Amino acid sequence: MSLKGNLLVGQAGGPSSVINSSLYGVIEEAKKYDQITGIFGTIHGIEGILEEDLIDLKAQSQEDIEGLKRTPGAALRACRYMLKSSEPDDDDIMRVYEVFRKYNIRYFIYNGGNDSMDTANKIYKAAELMEYDIRVMGVPKTVDNDLEGTDYCPGNGSSAKYLATLVRESALHNESMYTSEPITVLVTVGRNAGWLPAACALANNGKDEAPHIICFPEVPFDKDSFVNKVKKVYDTVGGVFIITGEGLTDKHGSYVMVKSGDVATDPFGHPELGAVGDYLKNLLEERLKLKTRVIVPDISQQAAMHWASATDIEYGELAGRTAVSAAIEGFSGFMPSIRVGKDNTTYNELVELETVANAERRVPDSYINREGTFVTDDFINYIAPFIQGDVKLPMENGLPVYTRLKRIPVVCK
Amino acid sequence: MSLKGNLLVGQAGGPSSVINSSLYGVIEEAKKYDQITGIFGTIHGIEGILEEDLIDLKAQSQEDIEGLKRTPGAALRACRYMLKSSEPDDDDIMRVYEVFRKYNIRYFIYNGGNDSMDTANKIYKAAELMEYDIRVMGVPKTVDNDLEGTDYCPGNGSSAKYLATLVRESALHNESMYTSEPITVLVTVGRNAGWLPAACALANNGKDEAPHIICFPEVPFDKDSFVNKVKKVYDTVGGVFIITGEGLTDKHGSYVMVKSGDVATDPFGHPELGAVGDYLKNLLEERLKLKTRVIVPDISQQAAMHWASATDIEYGELAGRTAVSAAIEGFSGFMPSIRVGKDNTTYNELVELETVANAERRVPDSYINREGTFVTDDFINYIAPFIQGDVKLPMENGLPVYTRLKRIPVVCK
Repeated sequence: MSLKGNLLVGQAGGPSSVINSSLYGVIEEAKKYDQITGIFGTIHGIEGILEEDLIDLKAQSQEDIEGLKRTPGAALRACRYMLKSSEPDDDDIMRVYEVFRKYNIRYFIYNGGNDSMDTANKIYKAAELMEYDIRVMGVPKTVDNDLEGTDYCPGNGSSAKYLATLVRESALHNESMYTSEPITVLVTVGRNAGWLPAACALANNGKDEAPHIICFPEVPFDKDSFVNKVKKVYDTVGGVFIITGEGLTDKHGSYVMVKSGDVATDPFGHPELGAVGDYLKNLLEERLKLKTRVIVPDISQQAAMHWASATDIEYGELAGRTAVSAAIEGFSGFMPSIRVGKDNTTYNELVELETVANAERRVPDSYINREGTFVTDDFINYIAPFIQGDVKLPMENGLPVYTRLKRIPVVCK
Repeated sequence: MSLKGNLLVGQAGGPSSVINSSLYGVIEEAKKYDQITGIFGTIHGIEGILEEDLIDLKAQSQEDIEGLKRTPGAALRACRYMLKSSEPDDDDIMRVYEVFRKYNIRYFIYNGGNDSMDTANKIYKAAELMEYDIRVMGVPKTVDNDLEGTDYCPGNGSSAKYLATLVRESALHNESMYTSEPITVLVTVGRNAGWLPAACALANNGKDEAPHIICFPEVPFDKDSFVNKVKKVYDTVGGVFIITGEGLTDKHGSYVMVKSGDVATDPFGHPELGAVGDYLKNLLEERLKLKTRVIVPDISQQAAMHWASATDIEYGELAGRTAVSAAIEGFSGFMPSIRVGKDNTTYNELVELETVANAERRVPDSYINREGTFVTDDFINYIAPFIQGDVKLPMENGLPVYTRLKRIPVVCK
């Protein structure tokens, strides 16, 4: 079972606030084992392997390594580049294994979402045919919480806490302005899964409090029933605070705010979204003649370390540590998952990368009310534990100070 | 000089994080003086006077009053309604004075921006012709920092600190994604004054760090030179973080992102802005083919009490207290201002509402670099003191707990 060599870790996809906590966990866990000699990081994920842009993580100061636990962004830089094939004759696969051989990489840890788990899985699947002994592990990361095979993704709790706080605060502002600007729409990230819109419900602390309506990607959007619901809340409360995910679809499954025949796509071929806030604003201002404000936190909701969840940071670190310890035990082609059992206790499990790759875990019916406009108590009980605990950041001149890793290149011996 | 009766306080315009600190200052200062018998609040500013919707602030619990210092939004609710005239035959003026007489209001404190100072000034000017003895004082409030007659507006420092933190955090995220999503645009509020875009420069902590380019409402926007500058930074750094104010104008003074002949206006006749983020995104994606993300914090930047500046809160309270103590001394038709002297020391002064009403204080040339794309060190030295100090909020279930005043109606004796 013993496999000796270097460990390479990479980060991919849109970072979360705790992606670097997972990196911290990987590094600190890896230091424990004699089998792991060098600990290297690849810059911009797979791209850094293809370009041999690797840095030495053992050569970093311990202060910088500790700083990872409270630094947003991806300290190694991430990428959206994916492997297309796991076949041994694929150019990228050949290059990846060429670099692995050159640097004697025997442990490869890839931290990302479903696209990245697919890439890790392709590398894992190629190992045997490449006749190269390596252990490949994924580490879950998405603020969206939409990874299959795990009941919770590190990163989600911090964004949930930050967004729910923004909603509670902005709702007090919105209430103040009911007589002139009665409606606010807040757009969260999460293309097809409504975990973050759902989490905004945590802000609600009593009857008539915000948020009043949540638009889930899971629930087909119907213009008329939406406008009627907004009108009903407005007539009762005097104003309306609406949360929406990025990707609302009609009953036919088409994105509502994409003009027909004019779909912009991102590098993965996913339609480019984000204009849903303006779409709802225009709809409400036209139909109800009520001034509507739109909040689009975009990447700031994935980077808001100043208001992260300490519990989420711990799960991030744990996921990184577990990936390394499982690889040492001999596992390869797996991702540590966080299972939520009875009474919302959590336990760890390893799931095959194959299960996670490219799948999407959407919010189940039991977490959405019958009307499809709010969450259930079951959802609140599920998510609440993951937003607990505050972080204390080092401050300088009134602002938080963050860590940057040094670009110390790996010297190939 | 002694004038005995009740004090009425109102809040107006878009709230800042510290508008309730000013309210706290007004209430606590008013309690000190025997001349002031009742302390009342008007709900939704002037609208609450016209509709006789007044609440009793002395009847609130001290816990709730203390809670005002760390609660966003306008606790009394604000409005965008303005008085059109100070003539005694104006319907609104007649009604305002009718209510003042009925409730024996002898001190009127109005907390808001330049539109609101104009309304306060109209009430002040009408007093003599209405043959009614009253002292009217304004209290400065704008996150935009654009009030004439003061060198600093309470509310600006908290938004500045929050936005600069978002920029520093989101920039680390942006850096992580340079190879796939290299550009981010963050849109701040502030229609014609670039104080908040300027404050985002606080995030910059070294060469090549974000923000890289600031688009000021004060500097005519030129498409070509903007695109060239973005390209230059991209070629050097690998990515670009851009800050923009809401209201960019071309060299003729026309808003760049408003379609000709199709100008939406708000209730004050100001053009409705906010689409500038998408305007810049479309421009850059078309010209440079570089994926661009847009962050629009909108009202969340005015309500982010969880990351407010303790110094700003103190200035907010001080402004409220000074308005009351000056009124007791016999002043009427004034607003306390905060002057920044040599070595950035601050001192208080009273300025006439007439000076402040409807004027706009824009960022002076000395605070903007020659190229018109960044701030000078003088600006940093000016703004830095106002973002210092953190707030500690009461937390419950992972989220901050805020105060709501009780709707205890004023009983007219």
